Amino acid sequence: MKDFGRVCCLKFTESPRPAWVKRDKLVSDMSTKKELLQAPIQHIDIKQHNVVALVDAMKSMAYSSRDLARAADIYEMMLRDTECGVILCLAGSLISAGLQKVIVDLVRHNMVDAIVSTGANIVDQDFFEALGFKHYIAGDEYKYGAGDADLRELMIDRIYDTFIDEEELRICDETTEKIINSLEPRAYSSRELIAEMGKYLSENGRTPKAGEADSIVLACYEKNVPIFCPAFSDCSFGFGIVAHQHARKGKTMVSIDSGKDFYELTQLKIANPTTGLLMIGGGVPKNFAQDIVVAADILGVEASMHKYAIQITVADSRDGALSGSTLKEASSWGKVDLTFEQMVFAEATIAFPLIAGYAFHKGAYEARSEKKFSEVLMEPIAV
Amino acid sequence: MKDFGRVCCLKFTESPRPAWVKRDKLVSDMSTKKELLQAPIQHIDIKQHNVVALVDAMKSMAYSSRDLARAADIYEMMLRDTECGVILCLAGSLISAGLQKVIVDLVRHNMVDAIVSTGANIVDQDFFEALGFKHYIAGDEYKYGAGDADLRELMIDRIYDTFIDEEELRICDETTEKIINSLEPRAYSSRELIAEMGKYLSENGRTPKAGEADSIVLACYEKNVPIFCPAFSDCSFGFGIVAHQHARKGKTMVSIDSGKDFYELTQLKIANPTTGLLMIGGGVPKNFAQDIVVAADILGVEASMHKYAIQITVADSRDGALSGSTLKEASSWGKVDLTFEQMVFAEATIAFPLIAGYAFHKGAYEARSEKKFSEVLMEPIAV
Amino acid sequence: MKDFGRVCCLKFTESPRPAWVKRDKLVSDMSTKKELLQAPIQHIDIKQHNVVALVDAMKSMAYSSRDLARAADIYEMMLRDTECGVILCLAGSLISAGLQKVIVDLVRHNMVDAIVSTGANIVDQDFFEALGFKHYIAGDEYKYGAGDADLRELMIDRIYDTFIDEEELRICDETTEKIINSLEPRAYSSRELIAEMGKYLSENGRTPKAGEADSIVLACYEKNVPIFCPAFSDCSFGFGIVAHQHARKGKTMVSIDSGKDFYELTQLKIANPTTGLLMIGGGVPKNFAQDIVVAADILGVEASMHKYAIQITVADSRDGALSGSTLKEASSWGKVDLTFEQMVFAEATIAFPLIAGYAFHKGAYEARSEKKFSEVLMEPIAV
Amino acid sequence: MKDFGRVCCLKFTESPRPAWVKRDKLVSDMSTKKELLQAPIQHIDIKQHNVVALVDAMKSMAYSSRDLARAADIYEMMLRDTECGVILCLAGSLISAGLQKVIVDLVRHNMVDAIVSTGANIVDQDFFEALGFKHYIAGDEYKYGAGDADLRELMIDRIYDTFIDEEELRICDETTEKIINSLEPRAYSSRELIAEMGKYLSENGRTPKAGEADSIVLACYEKNVPIFCPAFSDCSFGFGIVAHQHARKGKTMVSIDSGKDFYELTQLKIANPTTGLLMIGGGVPKNFAQDIVVAADILGVEASMHKYAIQITVADSRDGALSGSTLKEASSWGKVDLTFEQMVFAEATIAFPLIAGYAFHKGAYEARSEKKFSEVLMEPIAV
Repeated sequence: MKDFGRVCCLKFTESPRPAWVKRDKLVSDMSTKKELLQAPIQHIDIKQHNVVALVDAMKSMAYSSRDLARAADIYEMMLRDTECGVILCLAGSLISAGLQKVIVDLVRHNMVDAIVSTGANIVDQDFFEALGFKHYIAGDEYKYGAGDADLRELMIDRIYDTFIDEEELRICDETTEKIINSLEPRAYSSRELIAEMGKYLSENGRTPKAGEADSIVLACYEKNVPIFCPAFSDCSFGFGIVAHQHARKGKTMVSIDSGKDFYELTQLKIANPTTGLLMIGGGVPKNFAQDIVVAADILGVEASMHKYAIQITVADSRDGALSGSTLKEASSWGKVDLTFEQMVFAEATIAFPLIAGYAFHKGAYEARSEKKFSEVLMEPIAV
Repeated sequence: MKDFGRVCCLKFTESPRPAWVKRDKLVSDMSTKKELLQAPIQHIDIKQHNVVALVDAMKSMAYSSRDLARAADIYEMMLRDTECGVILCLAGSLISAGLQKVIVDLVRHNMVDAIVSTGANIVDQDFFEALGFKHYIAGDEYKYGAGDADLRELMIDRIYDTFIDEEELRICDETTEKIINSLEPRAYSSRELIAEMGKYLSENGRTPKAGEADSIVLACYEKNVPIFCPAFSDCSFGFGIVAHQHARKGKTMVSIDSGKDFYELTQLKIANPTTGLLMIGGGVPKNFAQDIVVAADILGVEASMHKYAIQITVADSRDGALSGSTLKEASSWGKVDLTFEQMVFAEATIAFPLIAGYAFHKGAYEARSEKKFSEVLMEPIAV
Repeated sequence: MKDFGRVCCLKFTESPRPAWVKRDKLVSDMSTKKELLQAPIQHIDIKQHNVVALVDAMKSMAYSSRDLARAADIYEMMLRDTECGVILCLAGSLISAGLQKVIVDLVRHNMVDAIVSTGANIVDQDFFEALGFKHYIAGDEYKYGAGDADLRELMIDRIYDTFIDEEELRICDETTEKIINSLEPRAYSSRELIAEMGKYLSENGRTPKAGEADSIVLACYEKNVPIFCPAFSDCSFGFGIVAHQHARKGKTMVSIDSGKDFYELTQLKIANPTTGLLMIGGGVPKNFAQDIVVAADILGVEASMHKYAIQITVADSRDGALSGSTLKEASSWGKVDLTFEQMVFAEATIAFPLIAGYAFHKGAYEARSEKKFSEVLMEPIAV
Repeated sequence: MKDFGRVCCLKFTESPRPAWVKRDKLVSDMSTKKELLQAPIQHIDIKQHNVVALVDAMKSMAYSSRDLARAADIYEMMLRDTECGVILCLAGSLISAGLQKVIVDLVRHNMVDAIVSTGANIVDQDFFEALGFKHYIAGDEYKYGAGDADLRELMIDRIYDTFIDEEELRICDETTEKIINSLEPRAYSSRELIAEMGKYLSENGRTPKAGEADSIVLACYEKNVPIFCPAFSDCSFGFGIVAHQHARKGKTMVSIDSGKDFYELTQLKIANPTTGLLMIGGGVPKNFAQDIVVAADILGVEASMHKYAIQITVADSRDGALSGSTLKEASSWGKVDLTFEQMVFAEATIAFPLIAGYAFHKGAYEARSEKKFSEVLMEPIAV
């Protein structure tokens, strides 16, 4: 039974002219929430844009274009190496920015075998849209904070140039709590909990078959692609778990075991030694996915380094933080092989559709079958 | 009983001339691990440098200097507002870079009441040094990866311009496992586990009293300052937990409950409504600490926004990622008040000693008493 | 008569596999100059890539993709506004990076009416290639300086990931000197001198008609598009002028009057009041082109601000420098109108082909005729 | 005779509390120009802040702090190498940001022998302040452009977080025109013209002796330190020259010969072979000063590379532009020696006072005598 009654009646009429055209009125004149939440973010469909010739042309240029083309080539290599398990790492607000469909398409075409992500991408953004909600285009005049006090009063949250209805986000929080409350009290990996979210969508008709939009959580649930969020309380799911644990104080309760996350991802590395990393942004997902090479070693399995690794980021390397650290640096730690690695200095909304679209239109996935890593985790691993 | 036999005999003789002086020989000529791990990183002591006049002069300049001076002023305000609980957020490799003593000094002088950090800062770097190990200065010629293949063979890990002995890091991993194995099997918050690490140091004589170096983990343990690592398996502790869970397969085991982390930090917000954020870098710590305002709301407590917030970062805001998102943006989410917030575009090794040193030498902490937040968490919270 | 004897016999055989594939051997094993200068940079041809649907899809995304799409839209608007004179500003090493043909195509299709550039793009890179020389793809292993000492011995210059034959560059220097020596001694604007370079190419058969590659200098010469380099001694032409002035010491000589540059560009603003700026990078070209609004005012002509302005840059705005300063800031100076301005945070080799290609394939130029601004400057301007 | 009547009656009463304290009122409520131009930028005095111990402590840290400390050390080395001619390169809005006095102090203490700069620093900012005008602190709420339309109406120009009175700037433009009009018509190097500006200040009583503020233009004039602006029409002086050339149309006139600039700076390199570069920002000054090594070579003099080179910048290297290109890259061009070079990734208002202050308080200049390079240029050079 669906229970989206509160919001399912929302209808988004798209304005005939592009939403980003500057409005004449000042930020301070803005009136209603409805006016501000008019033009939804629309997810780019890489299947519609054959960028192969464009990216191939970039191979003989310089700077970011050449790096991007090389990264696209390495992603294609990963896919043609059918032994390779492709781990997609997501950091930054990517789904809200229009990249949801790219990732859904990669999952549906067996181009991704596991995902490591920040919680916000998976819960606050992807699962949120799966519940029927949208992200909205914010006018340029909001980008630098000029209207934030007003937005707060309207319960509109802002991500740079994008708006979210905080009231809808609260429904998302409540839905995660409802799912948690339905579970047997014990320690879960985030992977298990996200699979429950996928099951929820499936059972509640939030599926393409039922006429609803597709989502990463659903696609991964159906394709047995595990999703890990190593800091899983740091998102909408965290609000659900806090409410749950508060209500269950003194009783048995659901907990999120980030140790189990690490153990499970390490098991996948052991079960499928050849791996490649396709990283958007840095942060915890980058570090976490790189570290499983060492973790396998600690379990007594001599694991090979990640054979392929590409990262799209604008982070600087000069502050020493991991997000912008080069993949060469990771090779000193024995995590990433030096042969097929490429950093791409570019913002993801431009670079990721080109890289993913290139690999898609080269058809590299066609000889590939699904790895069903979620099923691997249900069987005992011989270490 | 101490058990650092394998390494405690290391003696670091500092070279008479600065370690960063360029060596004549090529990267490819490098010989031994011992030669490379010669000059240890030394932690800056803000107590020795009265920067008040310097920072005051920056108040009437422009760009980052003025922003830095304003941030220093806001930190001082936080401290003079004795109701305010100061939450220090740490992301990026800060301890390895020479900032350990700054943080220890803030903790020891009641200038920080809770810490939210990436795991690497707390375990791989601070606890690692507490075990007697060091980080080392790497020559400029290693910064961009020219020697990484050789480093891997020598088991030397690199963080930009800093070296770590991977063999020593493995001892750190093993120590975390030993601590985990000594605990009663159940779900723990990272805060509880880090307190156990502090206890371990205290009981094993890794203390200033015993002639050893001070550390953040120890100082916080002694001062009842809680430390949270929301992605706690994503560090050396993760290797310990994986080993533990692997060995305990099928039995009761220790797990890391990131939900409990979030619940606990939220309880602190409820118990101490006035809060200020002192953030180095972005990532999970920034988001996590900001989100407790909303979490308190979900528990039915109308929590005030963080009254003060400063962040030091070089992250760009234009990719939409949280790390570089402005504090104004956080105010649209109802998380941070607009009145006393300041972003400082600067690399932390330069900016943090100036900001912390300013507040220290202004003596703002003198009228302040310790909040002992760890004790608060041991009592039932009335929500 | 051509006089490129020393180098015209060079034949570039392209390797069958992409040049950027990592070579197994170390930087230090490199052998000959010939081996290193094998794979030439090839200029992307926007006419071959219809990116309209791709860029249109970006309009409903977020961050840089949406900004890029808006910039493409504004460039199209500039072109459809047939009154508008389009001023292209170039900073950064763009021609060496594979963007020469994009600019040649814009000039040939009446999509650019004047150019303001750093000298390097025009002389060291475009004119250099017009003389029959090439830029070469450097392996990733050279990007961070690991091989620079060796390169210097081989007389190979490096621009990040690109190589140049210093011996060929010296021929370019000598050619500028030859052109200067052929001129009547007086003060010239850079525009006049660059037109002489175009004439030189035309008269020496360095033209597509003669089977040679096209170039910006030639195309602008033929299309009467003026090119200004406000710091014209700061490039290969500077070496020519130094040699010339040294040889002519005590006699009348050619001089480069940067005052005349500014006066001429201001006259164009007065003659054609509606203007748009298409800026790649910042630096002197950005400031110079913006300032003509004020200069016209000083000549007593109430000039309108630049009606359209877009800039592609990765420069940060937080250091206060002009290169990364927002176009909103320029509006406080009365230089740029606020209505149609867009900054695009992206590296030019990716973003510029998309923006230029979008406008090209939308056919916006078709209703446009050439403005022949060089001819305007030959007539007296009524101020 | 002074002629600053229009503005010399301005008195700046500083507000008792720091100007950057956020005002409660909105940007849109702002009232008068006088209210906005209240708190002048005040130039930091490095002589008051002994940072030697602080910077020495940074030598054993990591990232930017260690780089900064090494740069400070290299600057000290330059000064102790009494053969070395120190060339200071300035790009970015530095004088408006509070760095004027740092540079004046370096000049007065023989710590700088020549300056290469953007025009804005020298004319619009330093000479402007020498005329008795000030730059003003802008509130944080203006940083991102929220008030730019209002500012334009008030004739207030904005540089990020700094305000300038456009009416005062027009007086500066007019003063340059007056100086130009007083000169014999011929081609001048920017160095000659800036010396005329120094003479103007000296003769009109804009000197410390006369109770006025010191300035870079004046100090360099008095100390025979040449200042070069390779794009000299790209600043307030350009407005003067345009007005002059317009008025003198058809007659002999003053012109700015950027070729002569390059020739003169090259002569200095030949006369004083050992050189060091102290660069703030990149752009034309960086390239121009580096190129004189090649120019000397072209004049038949085998010039040594710059022996020392340090650069403070936040520019990214990944877009291939010169501003962020590493000094290692410059070494492939044979311009900069590899032994004593250091890039510092930091914003100049923080980093430059520390580096300059370190060298000052180490007293490295004491054994140094002034080089009077301006006098060198008045004598014939034997090449």
